[in-house]
Parts: sequence; structure tokens; C-alpha cells
Amino acid sequence: MYKGFKIKQPFFEIGPKAYCDGEETISLAKVADEASAKYDVQIILTPQYTDIPFIAREAKNLLIFAQHMDSLTIGRGLGSVLPEAVKFAGAVGVMLNHSEKRVSLAELNQAIKRADEVGLATIVCADTIEEAIAIAYLNPNIIVVEQPELIGTGQTSDPDYFKRAIAAVHSVNPEIEVLTAAGISSAMDVYKVIKDGAVATGSSSAIFKAEDPAAMIVDMIKAVRQAWDETHL
Amino acid sequence: MYKGFKIKQPFFEIGPKAYCDGEETISLAKVADEASAKYDVQIILTPQYTDIPFIAREAKNLLIFAQHMDSLTIGRGLGSVLPEAVKFAGAVGVMLNHSEKRVSLAELNQAIKRADEVGLATIVCADTIEEAIAIAYLNPNIIVVEQPELIGTGQTSDPDYFKRAIAAVHSVNPEIEVLTAAGISSAMDVYKVIKDGAVATGSSSAIFKAEDPAAMIVDMIKAVRQAWDETHL
Amino acid sequence: MYKGFKIKQPFFEIGPKAYCDGEETISLAKVADEASAKYDVQIILTPQYTDIPFIAREAKNLLIFAQHMDSLTIGRGLGSVLPEAVKFAGAVGVMLNHSEKRVSLAELNQAIKRADEVGLATIVCADTIEEAIAIAYLNPNIIVVEQPELIGTGQTSDPDYFKRAIAAVHSVNPEIEVLTAAGISSAMDVYKVIKDGAVATGSSSAIFKAEDPAAMIVDMIKAVRQAWDETHL
Amino acid sequence: MYKGFKIKQPFFEIGPKAYCDGEETISLAKVADEASAKYDVQIILTPQYTDIPFIAREAKNLLIFAQHMDSLTIGRGLGSVLPEAVKFAGAVGVMLNHSEKRVSLAELNQAIKRADEVGLATIVCADTIEEAIAIAYLNPNIIVVEQPELIGTGQTSDPDYFKRAIAAVHSVNPEIEVLTAAGISSAMDVYKVIKDGAVATGSSSAIFKAEDPAAMIVDMIKAVRQAWDETHL
Repeated sequence: MYKGFKIKQPFFEIGPKAYCDGEETISLAKVADEASAKYDVQIILTPQYTDIPFIAREAKNLLIFAQHMDSLTIGRGLGSVLPEAVKFAGAVGVMLNHSEKRVSLAELNQAIKRADEVGLATIVCADTIEEAIAIAYLNPNIIVVEQPELIGTGQTSDPDYFKRAIAAVHSVNPEIEVLTAAGISSAMDVYKVIKDGAVATGSSSAIFKAEDPAAMIVDMIKAVRQAWDETHL
Repeated sequence: MYKGFKIKQPFFEIGPKAYCDGEETISLAKVADEASAKYDVQIILTPQYTDIPFIAREAKNLLIFAQHMDSLTIGRGLGSVLPEAVKFAGAVGVMLNHSEKRVSLAELNQAIKRADEVGLATIVCADTIEEAIAIAYLNPNIIVVEQPELIGTGQTSDPDYFKRAIAAVHSVNPEIEVLTAAGISSAMDVYKVIKDGAVATGSSSAIFKAEDPAAMIVDMIKAVRQAWDETHL
Repeated sequence: MYKGFKIKQPFFEIGPKAYCDGEETISLAKVADEASAKYDVQIILTPQYTDIPFIAREAKNLLIFAQHMDSLTIGRGLGSVLPEAVKFAGAVGVMLNHSEKRVSLAELNQAIKRADEVGLATIVCADTIEEAIAIAYLNPNIIVVEQPELIGTGQTSDPDYFKRAIAAVHSVNPEIEVLTAAGISSAMDVYKVIKDGAVATGSSSAIFKAEDPAAMIVDMIKAVRQAWDETHL
Repeated sequence: MYKGFKIKQPFFEIGPKAYCDGEETISLAKVADEASAKYDVQIILTPQYTDIPFIAREAKNLLIFAQHMDSLTIGRGLGSVLPEAVKFAGAVGVMLNHSEKRVSLAELNQAIKRADEVGLATIVCADTIEEAIAIAYLNPNIIVVEQPELIGTGQTSDPDYFKRAIAAVHSVNPEIEVLTAAGISSAMDVYKVIKDGAVATGSSSAIFKAEDPAAMIVDMIKAVRQAWDETHL
């Protein structure tokens, strides 16, 4: 866990994956940056590696994370993503072990240590609660618990599921933040998930395949705030 | 083969791999950029993904290539390197199938087609002459023939070897450029290789592990020009 | 190309993949073994690694191939498939680079050489005709040209396609056998493909998902013989 | 954890990796089989996949484990190692996540569940104590804690290290057996490690690169028994 990283609840992750890049990502990043300020919701954005410097120059509020990085140290390793390079580009963190980019347990362990070393926060993905507990022992900043069978179904996890996920991770280390995702297809889903007790959620395809991705981002961030205030004020 | 890409003999590839990044790479890129102009030697530089935008902003003469990219199209695929993103960042080409980042034949075939489609040149690595011929059928812009057993030995390929490599590739397609590498450890090696008939070569560890990488770059590029002029004028 | 391997046209590949194993594969192997003798059609069977010894003990006519092997030599490499072990178990060959088990070009090159060395035939898969030509330069015994977009569609390649595939491979080396596959879903498909000029074809899911796999094997082998005799006698 | 699997302390793992196969492995397996009976030390042997049926036919006492398997279920997946096939061949368990054959956390989780389902014990490798704890949450039968930096050094872990490893795993689940390895290069090392508190250890290169592997196996198993009796009687 990189101690230099702070994030405030509620927060939200926007995942461009390979859905968009360049001008489109930069433009949506600006929208997200403003929504973050307006609704006081911290946003983690995970753009393509090469888009990081462009967004870092523009964004004031976004928390830019790389989609992945390798644990390698300075040296050989052509085609790898060097932690120092990610940091230099303006990222404040890195996502690891997403279901589309699995890494071995040993590599995950080393990559988290490398992130701590160079000063990058880590957001690590788990498919199941037992995997989330296992990952908690490797001490990342944030764990995403995402039921892969719900991805793209438009069906969100039930409240009990993410309450158990949060409790399980906190039984190992209460400082680790838990983001519960999968199945978010609308601002209404976002609202529901936060009302049901999540402190953070996120979206990828629902934003980037929307007719108006910018509007979807604003609606989702607004929904986070509204649900949070109704629950926590 | 991306037809929009032109390169003039002799040329030289500088491979930072994961040896350096950020300020150091940017600074060495400037040195290479000037050496390229001064000695009229085109230079392919393959920085870390996230360093591409920084170098693209500074360099006037360098040919910036990504170290790798995936063949995927717009869509899912977190952690992948999207061809469009590489292009947007300012790269003019991409390296594929380096011995530290192998891809399958089918992926290589598709990545070359994707590069052609988005407008990126391709430099593809082969371990042996028979692999170089096989790759020539996939029609990249440049093939690197590198005897892996010589890497890091300070022993360069014998002249006969790269003459055969060039002839073999050209028997398939004479438009494909052939870069012969491996074992380059000094400006003298560069000189020798070009004198012996190579039209392009390159270096990685010999530059980045040198006491003075900037001086090594200048010396090597100067050696390319000198050897070329002695042989071709 | 392992010169100790001979195969006679027409031939047929049966691919159990992970569809079946143990008693079921052994029992179907016996059926295939008898059909091979009865219809004078050589059959390549690619069982699970651990099933090879069981089938080798029973079969008199089948050509048993491993589904994959690694190019590694005696030494470290836990979890790898050692060529010598495959040979010892009773396989006469190995499949390489199937679309479900891609290998890099360098690994493919080395694995073919290792197969030659230990005395195993090689059947290498290609997605496209250009990949088939590339592979032909690596000199395997057999190349499978399979249009992946047809797999599981019940639509077979058009006759022109596999005539071009065969011609392309033979332009490099006329000793390499060419098996054209994809889209075979019935004995009628097998008949059609051979009538249209193929010298070999194969099936996987159509056999192992059939209600009666044993009957399907017999019908397909019979169809090979019938189509072949109508075309070649 | 496959409940049908029982193992008695002290036990020992012999890892042929790709060091040997066929007749040599079968012959050494017989030696190990007899040593197991004579010294009442259970032995886990992890031969090449294709060697499993041969050894299963001969051995009376050995616990045969596959070097790896995939979590896939009956269906596609050419080149994979199907759990059912491993079981059919006569293995009673499977090794997972060795440093030479890493798997992702999600794959590891699923493979352990598949092993439980088909009735195979699991021995899972960890590089560090924190990884061992993480793996313990996935509930395998046995965890190997192996300091990779000691592999091949002839220097064994210090006693404190494996006491901490055992305690850490047992804090999660006391039913999981812990094998501590790395650096075993002689029967004397085996003796020392058991005297120092290990309940199980193992060897690979020290056996298979020995002048007389059969003698080395006997000496090591004998050392296990002697050290155990001196400590536990």
C-alpha cells in the first residue's frame, strides 16, 4: 500500500480499456475532471498508456491510473511497462490483475511492492471474495471485487454480496478501500449500488458504448453524489 | 507494409527497452535527434509507451516506434496497447516480435495488418534467416535479423550472415528493409558491420549501460555515416 | 520435416481437444483404429497427453499425435511437455500452433527442429494462406489451413480456397502435406471437401458433440474413402 | 482441499520437471516407491504428463502428481491439461503455480476447485510467506513455501523462516500441510531441514543432476526418516 496516496469516499472508476483513445479520451477526461470537482466525487481514470501524459497535462482532479504495469526493474524487458515510466507520465496509480489482464500471484505481489517503491497507488481486481481476501494480504491500496459473471449483463451484485466483500477485505486490513463493480449499465445502477452500501463503483462499456459518453459520465457521477448524500448525511 | 512510411539507408535503431525512461530518455532522444540531422542517418527510437508523447513533442528527425502493440480493435481489452493510441501519441511505427516480447504468428500477421490500417510502419524481429523469410511473407516494412546467441557477447555476426539474411528477405520482397543486429558493443562494431555490407544496425544495452550514453549515441551514429560513405561514395 | 514419417493420402485428423478423455477416448480410438484399417484412410488422433500411452497400447493403425509440445530440452521447465516424453509415450507426431494453443514463430521454429531431432512428425496450423506459406519455410510434415471464421459454423471453405492453399504451400515445398479443415459438421461435409480436391481434412466438435461419436467417426472415414475413390480411381 | 486425500508426516517431493522422462523416470520411480515403503516416508512424484500412466501401473506407494493442470472443463481447449484426464491416468494430485509455471490468482482458485471436484489433491507453490497466506485462503491440500533466491544455491532456508511459514499458513487453516523447499542439494541438507522443524521437503535438480540419482533418492528419504525419528520419537 502506497502511503502517499489518499482517496476520499465515495469514488468512481472510469475504464476506457481499448474503447477509446486520443482526442476522445482526452475530451472525456475533461468532462470527468469537471464532474469530479462539481460533485466532489474522486474519479480514477485508466486510459491507454500513451494517453496518460496528455490527460495528466489537462486534468486537475482526476486520479490517473495505468491499466497495467510490470514489476520489472530498470534493465532489459522490451515491450514491458516500467513502473518508473508510468509514474513519470503523470499517473498516480496502476490497476493490476483485471480479468482481461491477469497476472500471477507472484507477479502481483512484486508489482504491488514496486508500486509502493516508486510511489504509485494500486487498484487490484478480484473475481471472488476469497480472491479479495488473498489479495488483501498483498496490501494494495484498493481492491475491486467484481463478479465476472455479471459483466455486461446489466444485473448488479446484490447488496449482501458487496457488504460481505467489504467486511472480508477489512478483516485483513481496514485501510484497504473496496470498490464493488460489474453490471453497472446506467446512472440508476450507480445510484442503487451506492444506496445499497457500496463506497465506490465504476463503469466501462456502459460509458464508452453509450450514445453520449460525456452525458453518461456526468449522470453517473451525479448519481454517486446523490446516493451518497441520501445515505450518509 | 505501410506504404506511407519511407526510410533512407543507412539507418540505426536505438532501443531503450526498460533501461531508461522519463527525463533520461527525453534527454537522450534530443541527442539522437541532433545526431540524426548532423550525420544524415535516420534513427528509429523505441521508448517506453508513456514516453512517446514527450519525445514526439521534442524530436524533429527521430522515427519514434512503440516497443510493441496489440492487434486488437476498438473495444474491450484492458491492459492492451491499442494501435490507434500509439499512432495518436506520435509514433510512426511499432516494433513487433522482439525476443523479449514474442507474439504468435497469427497475432503478428494481424498486428502488421492493423499497423498498415492505422498508418504505422512495422519493424519485426527474427532470430534466424528462415524466420526472416517466413516473416517477409507477412510483409512488414523492416525486418531485424538478430542472432540471439550473440546478444550481449560483444561478438557481431559475420558479414556472410547478414548478406544471406538480406538476400533471403529480398528474394521474397525487395522492398523490405533489413536491419542486422546483435552483438554491437561499440562504435567500432557499428563501423565494422556497415563496412561489411549492412544497411542498418542498432544497439540497446551498449548505449544504455555505457558510462556516457549520449556520447555513445553520437559515436555510433557518426560511425554509421563514416562506414557508409567509405563504402557507398 | 521428420523424414521417418510417412502418411498416405487421403488422411483425416480427429481432434478430441478437451472434449473427452480416458475410457471414452480409448474406446473411440479403437473405433477409429478399425475404421482406418477398413477404409484404408490414415487417421491422426490427438488425445490428451496422459491418454497417449493408453491408446498407443491398443491402436494398430492410428497415428497418435500430441496436442502440443514445448521446444525445451532436458533440464528445468516444470509443467512443460518434453518432446522425448511425448515420443516415449507412443506418439508419432505433434500438433503445433493450433488457434487454441498459439506459439511464437521462434518457438514454432525450434519445436519443429526438436521434433525432427527426437523423431516426431509435425502438423502445424495456419489461419490464412500467407501464414501457411510462412510456416512452410519452417518445414513441418503437414500444414493445416483452417479458416478460423468458419470453425463451428457448419460452412466449409470453398474449393478454390483450399486449392490455393495447397498450391501456395507446395510452391515452397511440395513434400509438405496440406490438410484443409474448418466447418466440417457431417460426413456429407467430409465427402464434399474431398470431392472438391482436398487430400485430407478433419473434425473435432462435430464428432465429440455428436449423439453417437463412434458412428460419426465411421461415417466420416467412410465418406473420405468414397469421395477419394470417386475422384481418384 | 480435496478431503479424500491423506498424507502422513514426514513427506518428500521428488520433481523430475523436464530433467528426465520415460524409462529413466519409471526406473527411478520404482526406487522411490521402495524407499517410501522401507523408510515409511510418503513421496510425491511429479513426472511428465505422459509418464503418469506408466508409473501408476508400477508404483504401490508413490503419490503421483501432475506437474500442472488447467481449470478448464470438458469442451474446447486444445493443448490444455484436462483435470479428468490427469485423474484417469492415475495421478492422485496436481502441482500448481510452480515458479516455472505460474498461473493467475483466478486460474489458481478455479484449478483448486476443479481438483476438489474431480478428486485430486493440490500442492501449490508460493515464493514468500505473504503469498503462502494468500494461497491458504484458496484452500489447497499442501503449500510449498520456497524462497526462489535460494534455488540452486545449495543454501537452505533458515529454521526460523519455515517455522514462520508453517505458522502463517496454519493461522489461516491448520489442515493445510506445508512443505518447505529450495536449496536442498544433499541428503545432509534434507536431514538438517527436518531436524530444524520442517515436516516435509523436496528436491529436483540435486537428484536428477546427481551422478547416481537412484542413490540420491534413497539417501534423501533415509535422511528424512532419521531426522524425523530423532526429533519426534
